[in-house]
Amino acid sequence: MSHPHPELGPPPPLGAGTLRVVPLGGLGEIGRNMTVFEYDGKLLLVDCGVLFPEEEQPGVDLILPDFDYIRDRLDDVEALVLTHGHEDHIGAVPFLLRERPDIPLVGSRLTLALLVAKLGEHRIKPETIQVAEGERRSFGAFDLEFLPVNHSIPDALAVAVRTPAGTLLHTGDFKMDQLPLDGRLTDLAGFARIGDEGVDLLLSDSTNAEVPGFVTSERDISGVIDDVFHQAEQRIIVACFASHIHRVQQVLDAAHAHGRKVAFVGRSMLRNMNIARDLGYLSVPGDLLVDVRELDDLDPADAVLISTGSQGEPMSALTRMANRDHQIRIEEGDTVVLASSLIPGNENSVNRVINGLTRWGAKVVHKGNALVHVSGHAPAGELMYVLNMVKPRNVLPVHGEWRHMRAHAHLARLTGVPNDRVVIAEDGIVVDLHEGAARIVGAVDAGYVYVDGASVGDVTESALKDRRILGEEGFVSVVVAVSSTSGKIIGEPEIHTRGSGIDADAYDEVIPKIQEALEQAAADGITDPAQLRQLVRRRTGRWVNETYRRRPMIVPVIVEI
Amino acid sequence: MSHPHPELGPPPPLGAGTLRVVPLGGLGEIGRNMTVFEYDGKLLLVDCGVLFPEEEQPGVDLILPDFDYIRDRLDDVEALVLTHGHEDHIGAVPFLLRERPDIPLVGSRLTLALLVAKLGEHRIKPETIQVAEGERRSFGAFDLEFLPVNHSIPDALAVAVRTPAGTLLHTGDFKMDQLPLDGRLTDLAGFARIGDEGVDLLLSDSTNAEVPGFVTSERDISGVIDDVFHQAEQRIIVACFASHIHRVQQVLDAAHAHGRKVAFVGRSMLRNMNIARDLGYLSVPGDLLVDVRELDDLDPADAVLISTGSQGEPMSALTRMANRDHQIRIEEGDTVVLASSLIPGNENSVNRVINGLTRWGAKVVHKGNALVHVSGHAPAGELMYVLNMVKPRNVLPVHGEWRHMRAHAHLARLTGVPNDRVVIAEDGIVVDLHEGAARIVGAVDAGYVYVDGASVGDVTESALKDRRILGEEGFVSVVVAVSSTSGKIIGEPEIHTRGSGIDADAYDEVIPKIQEALEQAAADGITDPAQLRQLVRRRTGRWVNETYRRRPMIVPVIVEI
Repeated sequence: MSHPHPELGPPPPLGAGTLRVVPLGGLGEIGRNMTVFEYDGKLLLVDCGVLFPEEEQPGVDLILPDFDYIRDRLDDVEALVLTHGHEDHIGAVPFLLRERPDIPLVGSRLTLALLVAKLGEHRIKPETIQVAEGERRSFGAFDLEFLPVNHSIPDALAVAVRTPAGTLLHTGDFKMDQLPLDGRLTDLAGFARIGDEGVDLLLSDSTNAEVPGFVTSERDISGVIDDVFHQAEQRIIVACFASHIHRVQQVLDAAHAHGRKVAFVGRSMLRNMNIARDLGYLSVPGDLLVDVRELDDLDPADAVLISTGSQGEPMSALTRMANRDHQIRIEEGDTVVLASSLIPGNENSVNRVINGLTRWGAKVVHKGNALVHVSGHAPAGELMYVLNMVKPRNVLPVHGEWRHMRAHAHLARLTGVPNDRVVIAEDGIVVDLHEGAARIVGAVDAGYVYVDGASVGDVTESALKDRRILGEEGFVSVVVAVSSTSGKIIGEPEIHTRGSGIDADAYDEVIPKIQEALEQAAADGITDPAQLRQLVRRRTGRWVNETYRRRPMIVPVIVEI
Repeated sequence: MSHPHPELGPPPPLGAGTLRVVPLGGLGEIGRNMTVFEYDGKLLLVDCGVLFPEEEQPGVDLILPDFDYIRDRLDDVEALVLTHGHEDHIGAVPFLLRERPDIPLVGSRLTLALLVAKLGEHRIKPETIQVAEGERRSFGAFDLEFLPVNHSIPDALAVAVRTPAGTLLHTGDFKMDQLPLDGRLTDLAGFARIGDEGVDLLLSDSTNAEVPGFVTSERDISGVIDDVFHQAEQRIIVACFASHIHRVQQVLDAAHAHGRKVAFVGRSMLRNMNIARDLGYLSVPGDLLVDVRELDDLDPADAVLISTGSQGEPMSALTRMANRDHQIRIEEGDTVVLASSLIPGNENSVNRVINGLTRWGAKVVHKGNALVHVSGHAPAGELMYVLNMVKPRNVLPVHGEWRHMRAHAHLARLTGVPNDRVVIAEDGIVVDLHEGAARIVGAVDAGYVYVDGASVGDVTESALKDRRILGEEGFVSVVVAVSSTSGKIIGEPEIHTRGSGIDADAYDEVIPKIQEALEQAAADGITDPAQLRQLVRRRTGRWVNETYRRRPMIVPVIVEI
């Protein structure tokens, strides 16, 4: 990934009394959050998440931070702190542990439970250190204090990092619902206390920095869900994120109040809700839950499904229901609630799901027509409370795209942080904190690492570029057999094409042209296969472009016999 | 395209006293609007637009209605009425005229001017019949009356169609701004008058049927644009649709008031604004306009650009500015206004443009943070006015996806149209109006016809499926030379791959496996190339899947020498 300071070289060796901050992900993007803190030769990592690919990364399953910067220094890692259990904060941990399995993983009870379950699927048994809010604990020179924050998953933490070179406060992802369902408020008083001590650098969540005002309480969704249950005459299907335990709790409560039974659908939903229930984060009244197979025996007016698929994922139960390709058949009068955000990039998929469900007669309730979702991230009003309470000497907006980080920087300046103490960086930019001032001192590689199928990093930018061309235009392959002794062409060139929209009938038109070009080359004494390939590529490409005004990938193959 | 009545066969022959309605596009999608009306063997067409492809149609330039239903009956077409000049209403006309160049094109002055300019680029000189609002004119048995409607392009028309079998009212695209900039109101009184006469079937725009309430006046944007001009200290760049003449007018007025000069950027913007100016739809004060090359000589505080690219189109000037890949370099302090809607599917592209512009220091004003856009389509409140004024015997919601048509149908029922007189159809569904009742009587083909490069229809669903696979996974091609006399394999299989993420080093692993399989086949006496291809495909595919857990397209090529 390029960065806004192309003049920056590698950072200087870390000086004494300096704390170094290297974001490997999450700055300039929403996802793959990961920050490296470095002091006196030792490293502390905060978060290690994945980014989900967009259409620019076709076929990619996940995008990881590039571990290259720390690869040779994994033994210096004191700990990896996980602020909460979302994929964009924990999803890359299995890949990091492949490189050093015994990195101590530090997090809250729920965060570690979700992470251990995930690692179990990768057959990894990690070293974990459970911490609770209010706890203070040292890892080498890094003296950590954990503070509770409110977010769209329970048990999220902010972390203060005290070092001899200064104190950092990293908010993690947070918002400040003043009436959270679990009563667990973001510890603004704790932020203030540490601020009074002196915070040299605040790293704070920028996701909603462009949004004015304050969050609506998660609690306000209850009334809307209750209304949906009142009005629904048939089945109710609620789709939401499998980690949103509080959202699920509200649906369970409504189902219980209305005398309906609930089935969970989707592997991650089942896994997470089991964990949440076991640990006491989800309260399930007596015989509320049924297996999805038991639903058929219920009157639709008594049934609720809670499912994943709120982003229109192609293989999800909800998408298959919308396509009538699932055991659960959407019928006239069913109600479907998409109780989640719409992650940018998923608009089309979600729209297709809404149209599909609507077509079969379902009523679809979504954030566009009812308050069935509130964000998990602090908007501008709340970010200013944090800035004003912490009074940081320096601010580094994290967790956001450029638009969000710029907006957050603006808020920091508005609250009185001097312009030169507001550092706008992106992934790979190295920020040193020395004598109370944060400065950009260099840049390191922090590009995308792609997971596709079983392998990590095999699929490169160049393969993705090929995929984009192939996906837009298809390919035309031209196979020419050449005698390795005489250099003469054997038989006719053979053409194969897929995705180009060129009909086999048209091959007759171009084969003579290719042959003619090859004969000319032979007459000119050209026998080098690379040159012949180039020739075939050009001649074929010209024909395709002139005839069809299209530019498929041309793949010349010279077989030497 | 499938439809919700798979039991429907082809429609019966058209009976006497029956008016047939066949939507070929625009029902079940936003775009490629086209409706065929049929009476006594003659056809009237209303609109002939394109649909823009989504990511499901990679590499496709445009999607056309399938003309197959009318292909053999083009001589029976009395006229093609164009309700207004947007691409989703006129964009497919050049392709229809290739099949019969002298179809009379009927429309308002601006609509025809835009269409003639477009057809000129296709070197087509059409037969045009200009009509004005209030005019009544017969084409065979179709007696047409044109009524003014307010939309996001000037000079839009609704059309009433009187036939011996009944009267239709087709609204075209419309909204009901009560203070339109050009003073040209949607003729609700005319709708009422025709309603009093008796409207047997209302075809009305469903695009915004889900949106409650009423439109905000285009006029209300003026104040916001004025604020932007007040606050801007450097250059102002406004991106909007090239057809939105009123929006451009407001920017020109603001520029004039603030003493700035304006340059148009983008071919379609320049073309349309020239037409609009020549015909008097755009008023340009004296020396306001400059050429884009003259901008460099101006103080940035005196410069305004009006550009296309508001949807983040990859090749547009705005996207290239965001990528610093354009002669106009975005600088700290520039202001960019995206004064347009965000067409579903373009969210990611537009977000990338906003992030790019923000990164270089521009302030970006868009509909998410300021009232710089209002929709061109009537929301629910206005649709109910039309339903109540027209009092149609039957209603066919048009121009919308399923969610929009269902919502519109609901509004029709709320205003008192009996449930069995609200017809929800989609493209290809045939609706007959007979003795005052509209009924679905059959279905005809109305699939997507793809334009890709120079050709229409060459790129099929099967080619698109191949593109999707290639785009996600790339391909692995295996070339095997076989002696046509002995059937023996000559040399080693050769492997070529693109986009699969498989490294050339790995070929050594699979080549022996393929050879072994081929030797086994030879021992079994298998020489049929089709069988050998199948064998190579399976063996290679298995290896790729086991080794990489990926599924690229495997392309086996058997060259017989």
